[in-house]
Amino acid sequence: MSKGRVCLAYSGGLDTSVILKWLVLEGYSVVCYLADVGQEDAQDAAAIEKKAMLLGAERMVIEDLQKTFVEDLVFRAVQCNAIYEDRYLLGTSLARPVIAKAQVQVAERYNCQFLSHGCTGKGNDQVRFELAFKALNPALQIIAPWRLPEFCNKFQGRQDLLKFAAENNIPVSSSPKAPWSMDENLAHCSYEAGILEDPDHTPPKELWKMTLDPLDAPDKPTEFTIHFEKGIPVKVVEGGKETTGSVELFKLLNKIGRENGVGRIDIVETRFVGIKSRGCYDTPGLTIARLAHLDLEGLVMDSKVRELRDQFITVSWSRQLYNGMYFSPEREFVENSILFSQQNVTGQVRMMAYKGNAYVIGRSSDASNLYSEQDASMDSLEGFSPWDTTGFIEINALRLKKYGLQKQKDGQPLTK
Amino acid sequence: MSKGRVCLAYSGGLDTSVILKWLVLEGYSVVCYLADVGQEDAQDAAAIEKKAMLLGAERMVIEDLQKTFVEDLVFRAVQCNAIYEDRYLLGTSLARPVIAKAQVQVAERYNCQFLSHGCTGKGNDQVRFELAFKALNPALQIIAPWRLPEFCNKFQGRQDLLKFAAENNIPVSSSPKAPWSMDENLAHCSYEAGILEDPDHTPPKELWKMTLDPLDAPDKPTEFTIHFEKGIPVKVVEGGKETTGSVELFKLLNKIGRENGVGRIDIVETRFVGIKSRGCYDTPGLTIARLAHLDLEGLVMDSKVRELRDQFITVSWSRQLYNGMYFSPEREFVENSILFSQQNVTGQVRMMAYKGNAYVIGRSSDASNLYSEQDASMDSLEGFSPWDTTGFIEINALRLKKYGLQKQKDGQPLTK
Amino acid sequence: MSKGRVCLAYSGGLDTSVILKWLVLEGYSVVCYLADVGQEDAQDAAAIEKKAMLLGAERMVIEDLQKTFVEDLVFRAVQCNAIYEDRYLLGTSLARPVIAKAQVQVAERYNCQFLSHGCTGKGNDQVRFELAFKALNPALQIIAPWRLPEFCNKFQGRQDLLKFAAENNIPVSSSPKAPWSMDENLAHCSYEAGILEDPDHTPPKELWKMTLDPLDAPDKPTEFTIHFEKGIPVKVVEGGKETTGSVELFKLLNKIGRENGVGRIDIVETRFVGIKSRGCYDTPGLTIARLAHLDLEGLVMDSKVRELRDQFITVSWSRQLYNGMYFSPEREFVENSILFSQQNVTGQVRMMAYKGNAYVIGRSSDASNLYSEQDASMDSLEGFSPWDTTGFIEINALRLKKYGLQKQKDGQPLTK
Amino acid sequence: MSKGRVCLAYSGGLDTSVILKWLVLEGYSVVCYLADVGQEDAQDAAAIEKKAMLLGAERMVIEDLQKTFVEDLVFRAVQCNAIYEDRYLLGTSLARPVIAKAQVQVAERYNCQFLSHGCTGKGNDQVRFELAFKALNPALQIIAPWRLPEFCNKFQGRQDLLKFAAENNIPVSSSPKAPWSMDENLAHCSYEAGILEDPDHTPPKELWKMTLDPLDAPDKPTEFTIHFEKGIPVKVVEGGKETTGSVELFKLLNKIGRENGVGRIDIVETRFVGIKSRGCYDTPGLTIARLAHLDLEGLVMDSKVRELRDQFITVSWSRQLYNGMYFSPEREFVENSILFSQQNVTGQVRMMAYKGNAYVIGRSSDASNLYSEQDASMDSLEGFSPWDTTGFIEINALRLKKYGLQKQKDGQPLTK
Repeated sequence: MSKGRVCLAYSGGLDTSVILKWLVLEGYSVVCYLADVGQEDAQDAAAIEKKAMLLGAERMVIEDLQKTFVEDLVFRAVQCNAIYEDRYLLGTSLARPVIAKAQVQVAERYNCQFLSHGCTGKGNDQVRFELAFKALNPALQIIAPWRLPEFCNKFQGRQDLLKFAAENNIPVSSSPKAPWSMDENLAHCSYEAGILEDPDHTPPKELWKMTLDPLDAPDKPTEFTIHFEKGIPVKVVEGGKETTGSVELFKLLNKIGRENGVGRIDIVETRFVGIKSRGCYDTPGLTIARLAHLDLEGLVMDSKVRELRDQFITVSWSRQLYNGMYFSPEREFVENSILFSQQNVTGQVRMMAYKGNAYVIGRSSDASNLYSEQDASMDSLEGFSPWDTTGFIEINALRLKKYGLQKQKDGQPLTK
Repeated sequence: MSKGRVCLAYSGGLDTSVILKWLVLEGYSVVCYLADVGQEDAQDAAAIEKKAMLLGAERMVIEDLQKTFVEDLVFRAVQCNAIYEDRYLLGTSLARPVIAKAQVQVAERYNCQFLSHGCTGKGNDQVRFELAFKALNPALQIIAPWRLPEFCNKFQGRQDLLKFAAENNIPVSSSPKAPWSMDENLAHCSYEAGILEDPDHTPPKELWKMTLDPLDAPDKPTEFTIHFEKGIPVKVVEGGKETTGSVELFKLLNKIGRENGVGRIDIVETRFVGIKSRGCYDTPGLTIARLAHLDLEGLVMDSKVRELRDQFITVSWSRQLYNGMYFSPEREFVENSILFSQQNVTGQVRMMAYKGNAYVIGRSSDASNLYSEQDASMDSLEGFSPWDTTGFIEINALRLKKYGLQKQKDGQPLTK
Repeated sequence: MSKGRVCLAYSGGLDTSVILKWLVLEGYSVVCYLADVGQEDAQDAAAIEKKAMLLGAERMVIEDLQKTFVEDLVFRAVQCNAIYEDRYLLGTSLARPVIAKAQVQVAERYNCQFLSHGCTGKGNDQVRFELAFKALNPALQIIAPWRLPEFCNKFQGRQDLLKFAAENNIPVSSSPKAPWSMDENLAHCSYEAGILEDPDHTPPKELWKMTLDPLDAPDKPTEFTIHFEKGIPVKVVEGGKETTGSVELFKLLNKIGRENGVGRIDIVETRFVGIKSRGCYDTPGLTIARLAHLDLEGLVMDSKVRELRDQFITVSWSRQLYNGMYFSPEREFVENSILFSQQNVTGQVRMMAYKGNAYVIGRSSDASNLYSEQDASMDSLEGFSPWDTTGFIEINALRLKKYGLQKQKDGQPLTK
Repeated sequence: MSKGRVCLAYSGGLDTSVILKWLVLEGYSVVCYLADVGQEDAQDAAAIEKKAMLLGAERMVIEDLQKTFVEDLVFRAVQCNAIYEDRYLLGTSLARPVIAKAQVQVAERYNCQFLSHGCTGKGNDQVRFELAFKALNPALQIIAPWRLPEFCNKFQGRQDLLKFAAENNIPVSSSPKAPWSMDENLAHCSYEAGILEDPDHTPPKELWKMTLDPLDAPDKPTEFTIHFEKGIPVKVVEGGKETTGSVELFKLLNKIGRENGVGRIDIVETRFVGIKSRGCYDTPGLTIARLAHLDLEGLVMDSKVRELRDQFITVSWSRQLYNGMYFSPEREFVENSILFSQQNVTGQVRMMAYKGNAYVIGRSSDASNLYSEQDASMDSLEGFSPWDTTGFIEINALRLKKYGLQKQKDGQPLTK
């Protein structure tokens, strides 16, 4: 008799194949689930399904979530210029909520009692998936093999996995495994672990999947224009051709970024569980879209709204996403502000990509009156009385004069 | 009889030459002051002094402030990763406090009653200088010609300045003026006004002074290593050669940045007086140093300290500097935190610069135990019990489960 | 010929009567405007109108703004627990936007070209009114007599005002003026200036207008219950009687507070213009409503949303209101978050007022599942596995262990 | 053979007596430890020691930590106006670091391998103690009986504890247990659990230990003056008598507060583990000291420093203390700022306590020039040009005018 039905996040790779087989051997029925968020590995759906069924899955469900991923998560990140620890564009974190929600829906559809995944026990992803699972449907139980002592003891290294695979007729790719881990989606590819655990080991040239090496990029820059409406990219014009449609245009930005080697970072970050870890990421399209959006906001967003948004909203949303708190009241709270802040972020940004970098080379907007050449001009005093500035300075200086005088009195003059 | 003695910030250019002459004609004695913060224009000190004396100055004082500038301001900016509106590295803002303080000291030394400068009436610099003046010595009065109606009426455009120059034997450079304004120091060169007032007008190739065009940069990357102690760059190793000394090593970073075209931005920012304005900046060395510092902090800085520092200290210090609030109790307050946060930011960052970009390619530190290959390793469970994570997730999920259940009860299930 | 038409904020008191007459003598037509926001002085409308007409006003417009004031401003303050410098409930600041907007509407209705008010040149209110005026209708010009040199020179003290009044047949109240200034509305009465300028001078017993002295309050506490919906007080039950209606129930809270001496503060605050000033305020109803609201949020608001709201929204909204930035994009941005945060703040709070203080003595809500007696109970482990806490602690301790070890290594052990 | 030596936090009460006996029976040697942080229960040291020895303890160590508690924690809380969720003054949280550190020191002194405590598995205190233990000495193992399944199963309620006590000759107090839990120290007494788990159940009159019922307080107010140096109370003058010495003066403030019924709150708060819980607290002296300190800062602290301190430092320190993150790099970081901010917080505050409330009735300081009667005075224009305010307003209005005009253009005029 079955111990119950598990919905397992299944990629077709060695780890989740072993988990699938192990679950079957343990007496579970298993519905395998694969979310297509643009990763190359999801492209051969038929082979993955075949493998899952061969290993004893009851069913293999593959869903294309690219549109949801781009529109609900990636573009929200663009709207708030999301960034973690000033460097990481959150590529993996953005995909997790989309995948988790779809997996719960599949589990509900097929009457599963359990959810399972192949995330390791020290990483962020287990936290992200499971916090989402618990918010989405707390009645579903979670099997996290890499946190089960019996599983961890049985599989203490890759050799144990390969041995189990051989014993259980699990097909294993003949190409050698890269000496690092990867996670890919439309937004980025991440690289960590293995040889990268030495933070002073430069990533080898062949590591990067989604971007050309800047040294190999074309000698001629690519010029293009991104059009935004309410903070969302709605059109990209490149080589005289217009591209619209969320996924299509984001893929075009990825292509521009890839070919010009844009969006590589190599960092040490702190995981939610408190461990520092080294990660390399290439994020071509999102790097470009974020830069363009930041630039347009300079033109059209009120500076005080921007201050508040930058300091509180961007920081909060980014941290929430990184820490797996997407399905949370605080994320909802913060996201409401993001949308509100973007009402006038409409306009177009002209850009250039070249050998590892993207540059803004111009921007314009009809949606906002905040930038005015006349106001900005040093040559025009139309509508501006410079003597007002004298009063402005005087009033702002009231406190500062007292500060200077107090310092003098205290024997620590500022001019010292 | 003299109306009193003015200490005028004098660059030798057309504007301040006119102001100097005008002050003399108005009956003031004028002590001219020029701070050398690394700008090219300060290099020909003898010519500037000669011109000042020719125009009637009592005295010309030129001081080399490069060391103070780099050590007290530029490196403090590096220590807190200072940035304004997520883009601008504050090159001009950083120089102002150093210049203002030295000018006040000169004014005091020569018994001036007045301070004067050539800043325009709509910009940030007038505010920065004058807030500093008032904190440093509120007894000194300020003459801001570009905010005096009589001056503004007399000089309504460049033609009026040239006419006045011709009438008063003020030598004028024969080379045509660039159709934009510039301000240069060791940290950066800024470009604004003129043709740049149209934010969609791409800056011409010849505009940039401190960086080569990335398209013209060498095909071979430059590799180098920056060593930090308590967040401050103390050594740069490049081509087998070690450079120490604050100014020397910063100049070397500038050179590396310049040759590889690193550090150009083109943005629309909001001035303290509330006007949006377009500025282009090339900031080669500081861009590189900031990136290296950010990276090293990833390795050695506690993540919670970093969160607090990033969200509150970096943002506050940057805003204070931009707004001219350097000589203020709040800047002192915040700077105390910056120094405290940098105690362990010691280590070295290996980098590469190439055609417009700088890349980190490795980092290491003996000063901190926060990064541990063993902790980070996905293959080792030494010192880490994955089952703890289960409890961590459960406790974090308590709130989220209630959130999901409430949503269900309210007819807005999260899985919808 | 008239110099144009002015809409003057007119209270009927000495200052604005002098201004009215002065404007008339200067050749302006004057439409007088009085907003009734609950102040006692507005009660004798007929007398005020008569006086205005006597002094040469073209027209006197009096409007009852109490409902708007309570619903749009006071209750919004309750919803976000607004407070300035941790003490001041913003009573005056809350009324200004309501009054300013109505005054601009009156000015537009009667084709005025000017707006005028009697605020002093060092205070907050001039800034609040004029920033509002400029946002609401920048085409209207502002006459601020107390910032006009000719007016200030003419009227250098109260004696000059009285002399002018005598010369111009301006009726003056025969009761002696209190040796301080007051500003009253439904939310509070403020007291400043005069003898209060010595911050060590205890306010005399007779100063307080809206509250009984706690020493004179009844010996028996008043018990009552406030019902909230989405953070807004919708019903007060006291003595077996239900009161609804925004103004009515707020007046009842004022009455309860007044009789029990609740809501007096005596502080030194910093005005927007940077001057420190001493103010006393009695704020009976709002003090009670704010406490009740705070308490209910403890029961029904998610703690992470509350953290963000407290730290960013409450602080920002309060500062915006204090500084006169009500009609601003940033206030709109922040207010959108306030409303969003209050969706579940529904329930009732039982209270007691007694001799200077209000106490919460119980609260309940059907709207939220966040509080659960079972969860809270130390005696029940239903739905809670204490061993999860072990994991939670372990993971949280990862960083702290490293911190302790580093301290030891650095020769500064934490146990020292 | 002993399983090892445990240092147990032992109060002499039923719970920890059972734990002591249980540990002994399990085969551990036990060193009992009691920290005297001012709680009444610690007063009869001899009886507690006798009981511990009777139950099989190897040794009983009792230490007076009152001075450290007041000076290092309570006064630091005063210096930053610490508060959690806008209500709770952190009385329990403040004592934990002091107790934990001393317990670790005792454990080290007597060569213990284990630390143990009687905290429940759902509360904050287990987290606070254990995070401190792990930072202070990660080599010490922790026995948390209330999180051990074998212990929890054995003792499922108070009856099981009493039965075990009877079986093991553990003396049990004959006075009936209050139907709630208490935790007392010099700063406060807390009440929770039991009948208080219903948040609408008003705490009975007899519950409060450290304050008289306001209804029973004297009819005559108590007047007194608190003197501060750098934000720390250094002298209290009451009834003509001066009290100095940290513990002595804090006890005097407690006495004044107790007699006048000052400092009671009844709230629902969110524990670090995410559970909402109801707590009542009476905090007489700290409530008074905090109010006085807040008030003095109004007089002497620069407003911008205060803004930053309030929004970032106070909030962070309070949250860190509440969450048990005292021994953490972030608390050290934040505390450095607290001290820096208090340099000028020197002066005296005159106060009155009366029937449940404390009032400030005057304050003065020689340490700061920020308050100036002349500056504040509405009657003096010495050193202040009101026309400067015009410029200040104009410049601040630049953005707001654009905002109003944009709203008009968008068909949403602000005057609507």
